[in-house]
Amino acid sequence: IKSFTVFCSLLNVVHYDELSQYVDSHQEEYVQTLRDWVAVESDSSDVLRRPDCQRMMDMTAEKLQAMGGKVELVDIGVQELPDGKTVALPKVVTAQFGSDPSKQTVCVYGHVDVQPAKLEDGWATEPYNLTDINGNLYGRGASDNKAPVLAWIHTVEAYQALSIDLPVNVKFIIEGMEETGSNGLDAMIVAQKDTFFSDVDYIIISDCGWLSRRPALTYGTRGNCYFFAEVEGPKQDLHSGVYGGTVIEPMTDLIGILDTLISPSGKILIPGIREAVAPLSDEEWKMYQDIEFDIESFKSKIGVSQLMYSNKVDLLAHRWRYPTVTIHGIEGGFSGPGSKTVIPAKVIAKFSIRQVPNMDPAVVKKQVTDYLNSVFAKRKSPNKLKVTMIIGAKPWLADTKHPLYEAGKAAVKRVFNVEPDLIREGGTIPIAKTFEDVTGKSIIMMPIGGFDDGLHSQNEKMSRYNYIEGTKLFIAYLHEVAHLKKD
Amino acid sequence: IKSFTVFCSLLNVVHYDELSQYVDSHQEEYVQTLRDWVAVESDSSDVLRRPDCQRMMDMTAEKLQAMGGKVELVDIGVQELPDGKTVALPKVVTAQFGSDPSKQTVCVYGHVDVQPAKLEDGWATEPYNLTDINGNLYGRGASDNKAPVLAWIHTVEAYQALSIDLPVNVKFIIEGMEETGSNGLDAMIVAQKDTFFSDVDYIIISDCGWLSRRPALTYGTRGNCYFFAEVEGPKQDLHSGVYGGTVIEPMTDLIGILDTLISPSGKILIPGIREAVAPLSDEEWKMYQDIEFDIESFKSKIGVSQLMYSNKVDLLAHRWRYPTVTIHGIEGGFSGPGSKTVIPAKVIAKFSIRQVPNMDPAVVKKQVTDYLNSVFAKRKSPNKLKVTMIIGAKPWLADTKHPLYEAGKAAVKRVFNVEPDLIREGGTIPIAKTFEDVTGKSIIMMPIGGFDDGLHSQNEKMSRYNYIEGTKLFIAYLHEVAHLKKD
Repeated sequence: IKSFTVFCSLLNVVHYDELSQYVDSHQEEYVQTLRDWVAVESDSSDVLRRPDCQRMMDMTAEKLQAMGGKVELVDIGVQELPDGKTVALPKVVTAQFGSDPSKQTVCVYGHVDVQPAKLEDGWATEPYNLTDINGNLYGRGASDNKAPVLAWIHTVEAYQALSIDLPVNVKFIIEGMEETGSNGLDAMIVAQKDTFFSDVDYIIISDCGWLSRRPALTYGTRGNCYFFAEVEGPKQDLHSGVYGGTVIEPMTDLIGILDTLISPSGKILIPGIREAVAPLSDEEWKMYQDIEFDIESFKSKIGVSQLMYSNKVDLLAHRWRYPTVTIHGIEGGFSGPGSKTVIPAKVIAKFSIRQVPNMDPAVVKKQVTDYLNSVFAKRKSPNKLKVTMIIGAKPWLADTKHPLYEAGKAAVKRVFNVEPDLIREGGTIPIAKTFEDVTGKSIIMMPIGGFDDGLHSQNEKMSRYNYIEGTKLFIAYLHEVAHLKKD
Repeated sequence: IKSFTVFCSLLNVVHYDELSQYVDSHQEEYVQTLRDWVAVESDSSDVLRRPDCQRMMDMTAEKLQAMGGKVELVDIGVQELPDGKTVALPKVVTAQFGSDPSKQTVCVYGHVDVQPAKLEDGWATEPYNLTDINGNLYGRGASDNKAPVLAWIHTVEAYQALSIDLPVNVKFIIEGMEETGSNGLDAMIVAQKDTFFSDVDYIIISDCGWLSRRPALTYGTRGNCYFFAEVEGPKQDLHSGVYGGTVIEPMTDLIGILDTLISPSGKILIPGIREAVAPLSDEEWKMYQDIEFDIESFKSKIGVSQLMYSNKVDLLAHRWRYPTVTIHGIEGGFSGPGSKTVIPAKVIAKFSIRQVPNMDPAVVKKQVTDYLNSVFAKRKSPNKLKVTMIIGAKPWLADTKHPLYEAGKAAVKRVFNVEPDLIREGGTIPIAKTFEDVTGKSIIMMPIGGFDDGLHSQNEKMSRYNYIEGTKLFIAYLHEVAHLKKD
């Protein structure tokens, strides 16, 4: 037995080296595929872009089909729009490579929809034209999440090209609505619990990034409750000269209630929110202390002279395990350049609150709605306030002592020759919690995105280094997972 | 002498009736010309539309030239953009019909640029396609100010068509930057003080509207100080999940300072502003009491259940002779439909304060800047605040006992057989004050727009009734002015 294990290990190393060389020599091809994918403006937040989202799903399915996967495009129904109309949701792609019952089965989750992006937002390059500048590949969706999805696909392709058996069965579930809350996916997972997911042992998500130049494994994400607060007054926009002084302006009301959400020092003022947060344990505090995180380089990366907190533990904790309120913007006012002397008739603030254990989105919805209604009532305004929660995604937290994470550490060690940081993610991957609750399977998040990839902002990029070495990490990880005892 | 005067009066009546019939029978032609003018998207706030603005000026000049006017297109220089570049200002059109030194000379001021408009703002019809619905002509710029300018042009045309001598010399000064503060016009007026304006006796402005269905003469306008308050933080937009809780967000800061401008009950909180306002006299109070103004129909027109004040005098006073603050919107945040989880890096609030006697824009600029800077300083934010005043237009106030107004009352009486209301305008006609200060001439504002024309908002319109009867009012007014003693 011992000599067999050694032989296997040796075989793994030989295979890994061979696969790794294959990845290196196919780098240009991988970049070209990423360019083709980034060119599709699969912005899921804009219903007018829905055909692009659907095309992106088709392209994903075709790619997996061409590789001989057992592929399905799963209809997940329609999305209801605010005006009561409906629009078809992008289909979900599922695929399967290998069904050997003696092997572990991993299921890779990813998404191919993206956040909005326009050149005039301040991009240095066309956001949907992948542009290589000094080894960085700039483009909307490059890092979030098209390159990681492709790196997983290329992992399977490399094995196939070299006629090496996959050490585990690999399944894919790729969606097109992640950026707007994975609408429809929860129900699809529930529906396929006993079919597609029945033989899945582990779920792997690579929809996040490292914290520094050191590779990382991610064991938690924040959830997100996204709110619209709409204040409606006159039946149409009014001239601010002709009517200013006679009407109670919806924008003034909206600014007034938004200003009661959070204090200048970052304290959330909505009653009940802070009380629900799990306290920071000594063990956690210690863990944060040991993480590689350079405050000065973080500050210089985002270009600010001062952060909300000045020490590492407070910063990481408020990034990962405390809630926060962000006001994203106001729809309905005059938001163009130049000047316009208008009293907007209806204005809609968009804000969101990141969720952490032990917050509950249903409770948060009530807390926020009640609070804003009470604050608004004090203004005695004749305008109408309507608060709606359009996304309510729960946080997710894994056990870092699980063998999945041990396997992850070993894979990182093999490819990068360092220990990974164990980190959490301030952002939200809405589906992680659903996977856990519905399938009961363990989940690992294995990011390959860089710490400075600019997700959701201008000039998003994926470095060639992370894209290519990340593909190797996935190859190494499949070998490690193959050795885990089946649950 | 007496019999000559009677003869003149009789001649006037005969002429007026003849001219009036001519106007009635050319109604369709007038509507078509208005349609051609509205079709030009002469939005002066959008520099990309500058060629359209220039084309609008050319069309205006050509029209006046074809009528045999002595026309000039006056170059008024360039506009400096925020990025330091410059763009040519639309030329100003001047024209002259008649130069008989024994006659009075009136100068009609108007503008042919418009406010922004998009179908998706909530227009029921294409904003640049003039659409007749039940006698209302819907289109951006229809009432503000293209139809009134055309009504003046048609007035001169009618005399020409019927070979009736103009009772006064008529000059025109038509600009294309009114909606953004009449950039460049002040200097042009100063420059032409002793040339174009040297023989002008009176200036007539028809860039406003009635207060009710009763015709009105306007004797005052509010000025306007338009501010940009920019808060800049990180060097680019950030993902609100990844960075929320660690950065001090510019949007939170901006909302915080905006909320200190005005109280829920409409009280301006900027120190010094309210103190500068001229007190309401008993005479004024009495005058407001007598004005025809139906609060209920005003409420139902704008679609609100409650106004800032519940009695007529307070309402009219706060509309006309007290300052007000309006927050128009925020540039740089997420203002589209749907959701986006962004921390905007730089946000710019647009707000304006209507000016009344005895406020001084230069003082207001300092009051607002100092106040916002002090409020911002209390937040101890590392973000940068920049307050700029991009428009500083003074209020204007005329003496209603001036013969110009007596002539106006007589003309209204002839055409509509009622006494006009003497009203003020909450909006701003930046150039009125300049005309007065530079030329020393008396000014009258003679509106023909309806009380419900929707200036600056969706579904702006001009009724056929006001367009056609307004043209007759101008004809009648020229006769009345002809009888005034030369100053």
